[in-house]
Amino acid sequence: MAITFYDLSGMNARRFSPFGWRVRMALAHKELDANVELIGFSDKAKLEFSGQNLVPVLVDGATVVADSWEIAGHLQATYPDRPSLFHGAAGEASARFVAAYADSQLHPLVARCVVRDILEVIPEKEHAYFRAAREKRFGMTLEAIVANREETRRQLKTALYPVRTTLRDHAFLGGAGPNFSDYAVFGAFMWARSVSAFTLLDADDPVHAWRERMLDLFDAMPRAEAGFPV
Amino acid sequence: MAITFYDLSGMNARRFSPFGWRVRMALAHKELDANVELIGFSDKAKLEFSGQNLVPVLVDGATVVADSWEIAGHLQATYPDRPSLFHGAAGEASARFVAAYADSQLHPLVARCVVRDILEVIPEKEHAYFRAAREKRFGMTLEAIVANREETRRQLKTALYPVRTTLRDHAFLGGAGPNFSDYAVFGAFMWARSVSAFTLLDADDPVHAWRERMLDLFDAMPRAEAGFPV
Repeated sequence: MAITFYDLSGMNARRFSPFGWRVRMALAHKELDANVELIGFSDKAKLEFSGQNLVPVLVDGATVVADSWEIAGHLQATYPDRPSLFHGAAGEASARFVAAYADSQLHPLVARCVVRDILEVIPEKEHAYFRAAREKRFGMTLEAIVANREETRRQLKTALYPVRTTLRDHAFLGGAGPNFSDYAVFGAFMWARSVSAFTLLDADDPVHAWRERMLDLFDAMPRAEAGFPV
Repeated sequence: MAITFYDLSGMNARRFSPFGWRVRMALAHKELDANVELIGFSDKAKLEFSGQNLVPVLVDGATVVADSWEIAGHLQATYPDRPSLFHGAAGEASARFVAAYADSQLHPLVARCVVRDILEVIPEKEHAYFRAAREKRFGMTLEAIVANREETRRQLKTALYPVRTTLRDHAFLGGAGPNFSDYAVFGAFMWARSVSAFTLLDADDPVHAWRERMLDLFDAMPRAEAGFPV
């Protein structure tokens, strides 16, 4: 059955949604092909069929699933014989934990580093919408949000402590191999890499080495993606 | 082979080390009995044999292990046929992640709520040491650390977002049953409960309901412990 994956995109197929990246990595992990439909901020009417207006959306045969966590659960339930995204029920709880950690602790900090740069990769006609939505959320201009990003970068380093500690003894957050916990954190870095040349990680940070391993997964699919070398 | 567990204690056997609680729950999970040696801040010479001066320390036959994470690893490796603390190698990585999250994100906030109250449960002769050590760490008096603890409590609620999100779909962080991830977070709450009447969690917070389930584990061993009802 054909799968269609609706993912956020800027100009020149810059796919910068961290949640889209979670789905993209999950599909690759499950060895599933998908037709990709690229959706810009101004194309959201194309998602009307899903009953909401946020990417990522997956259409798998007759099933429509929105939200990256729901999509991961759908893929795991529908394709149980393919490589597991979670390593069992306990692993599903753990992946949920790590995804919620990324949402609440990493994404706000990454946003405060790169959100202004997103203007450079989306079409002019979307600038007013994007600026208004983000400036409302943060209560300040895009320029003010990122003004102190060297300090934000230090906060990000502190916030990554649980990731760094786990990587002392394990190649991936999923242990010997990657699982959805890795994809949840990696999405934040692919978001940044797609839109900004700003350096998030020190070269000697173990999280940097892990990101290199992640970029090499699936025949280096993430590394081949349009973005800024990091 | 006899196991001896050296745990931190105040007066009247108040065992308030969050790391001690991780070990205590891990021993109960593994259905292992241990002789308990209670160590006050002024008794640290009794730990000299371990080559360091921090509780918890476990002596299992000829093996001496310090550090709660190392102890958990020792118990899992030595007693693999008893209930697993981790649910596999991926689960060990996840528990490491959650423990590091608790260390870095929860403990500083819990300390800023209850650290002053610890004076009430340790002997007078340990007050000067305890005050000096903690005031040096925080750079202010014990009273100043906790002065704004209503605000700290709000920060704790925010920091608990990954725990709360996981508990939406699972009874425990370990999934259907508790594992070391649960004990890592629960230790922070048993630390607070042992020393302070300060309320950390709203009664309608899903984390509160989880803590109730945790207090009931192992024939309600944690609930029976000396402390403040929460």
